[in-house]
Amino acid sequence: MKLVIGDKNFSSWSMRPWILLKHFGIAFDEVLIPLYRPESKAKLLKLLPTSKVPCLTIDAGDVVWESLAVVETLAEAHTEQAMWPRDAIARAHARSVSAEMHVGFAALRENMPMDICKRATGHEATPEALANIACIEALWGDCLAKFDGPFLFGKSSIADAMFAPVVTRFISYGASLNDTSRAYCERVIELPAVVAWIADAREETKQ
Amino acid sequence: MKLVIGDKNFSSWSMRPWILLKHFGIAFDEVLIPLYRPESKAKLLKLLPTSKVPCLTIDAGDVVWESLAVVETLAEAHTEQAMWPRDAIARAHARSVSAEMHVGFAALRENMPMDICKRATGHEATPEALANIACIEALWGDCLAKFDGPFLFGKSSIADAMFAPVVTRFISYGASLNDTSRAYCERVIELPAVVAWIADAREETKQ
Ligand SMILES: N[C@@H](CCC(=O)N[C@@H](CS)C(=O)NCC(=O)O)C(=O)O
Ligand SMILES: N[C@@H](CCC(=O)N[C@@H](CS)C(=O)NCC(=O)O)C(=O)O
Repeated sequence: MKLVIGDKNFSSWSMRPWILLKHFGIAFDEVLIPLYRPESKAKLLKLLPTSKVPCLTIDAGDVVWESLAVVETLAEAHTEQAMWPRDAIARAHARSVSAEMHVGFAALRENMPMDICKRATGHEATPEALANIACIEALWGDCLAKFDGPFLFGKSSIADAMFAPVVTRFISYGASLNDTSRAYCERVIELPAVVAWIADAREETKQ
Repeated sequence: MKLVIGDKNFSSWSMRPWILLKHFGIAFDEVLIPLYRPESKAKLLKLLPTSKVPCLTIDAGDVVWESLAVVETLAEAHTEQAMWPRDAIARAHARSVSAEMHVGFAALRENMPMDICKRATGHEATPEALANIACIEALWGDCLAKFDGPFLFGKSSIADAMFAPVVTRFISYGASLNDTSRAYCERVIELPAVVAWIADAREETKQ
């Protein structure tokens, strides 16, 4: 199993399946293609039918792309791990919020692009980005209340992996959050898989 | 099981799980909330924690929303039906293109909003919408060649349901398509579940 990813400092979509695999202790080969360089597109197209990351090779020549399709495929291949919550109601809820993340919060993603090593003081969030943040805080608050924490659906799951790059953005740009959200961010940022990704991002940006 | 949907003529996201359920002969109650009216938002919020359709009630008060999360939940609850292709490689590919549809082709969606009863002659597609159409034709062509048709992954599956509202758009706006795509559109539009949805859309617009 080979996971093709982009720069760890920037590629928020790559981060999701990578930390999921690490968190659940599943071995994989990692191929990192630095993005936003003249040669990036050609390198990606040589490896992948689509030129986007993340992309997982599941068999000779057969790949799965789109972060959400990748994590569904992993969950199905590793039913010994509760990548999705075991409870059907929790799982349906987890799939809903993960799909919302997959498709939504465009203003936040544009206004606060992932840049793990960045620390912006006095960052000006647009009203649309602030509205996205409010939606995310409501969504997190609902999950944490309904499923009793410490992660969105109790134990950490795909849903937390989907939102982990939002957590790093909130930290990088100093988003002002309520206590519940801030405590959740701290728990996510301390997950060993997240710590490992961030350490690699720091190494990468030193080069 | 109750599926909350929007107007059949306009609500492309609602169409996807509805035709999937019909196609696979799964009984459900339908609740249609007409959208884009002064009272729509209040009606949706009374029924749903999120104000978007489609939304599926799976248990007293427990719902799943986001079209992709709804169809995953249905596929998992009805493993007796091959909503996703049975073959793992085909399934991974089907999930990838379905996730692409879930998140992408925004220019096409904006330039050619679903309006089933519309027949636009001489519709001007923007260059971005034309680029989306080219991507979709390539994606369909790949699937049809690799999995031998007649549907994207052989037998009709969630992937065809995800693209069905694109098919109705291509017809409404007279998109110029290659032969493979045109033939695929004809097969989709003749599926009894799609025929039934379109008939309801026609009734609705008469009112
Ligand atoms: N919807 C896709 C988004 C993937 C995506 O946009 N990836 C970016 C990096 S985070 C990329 O590959 N950019 C390179 C390019 O567009 O050529 C997913 O969920 O995987
Ligand atoms: N990403 C969502 C999109 C849902 C969506 O935008 N639904 C539209 C109708 S097709 C809606 O509910 N609009 C009403 C509103 O935004 O208030 C999905 O896949 O289900």
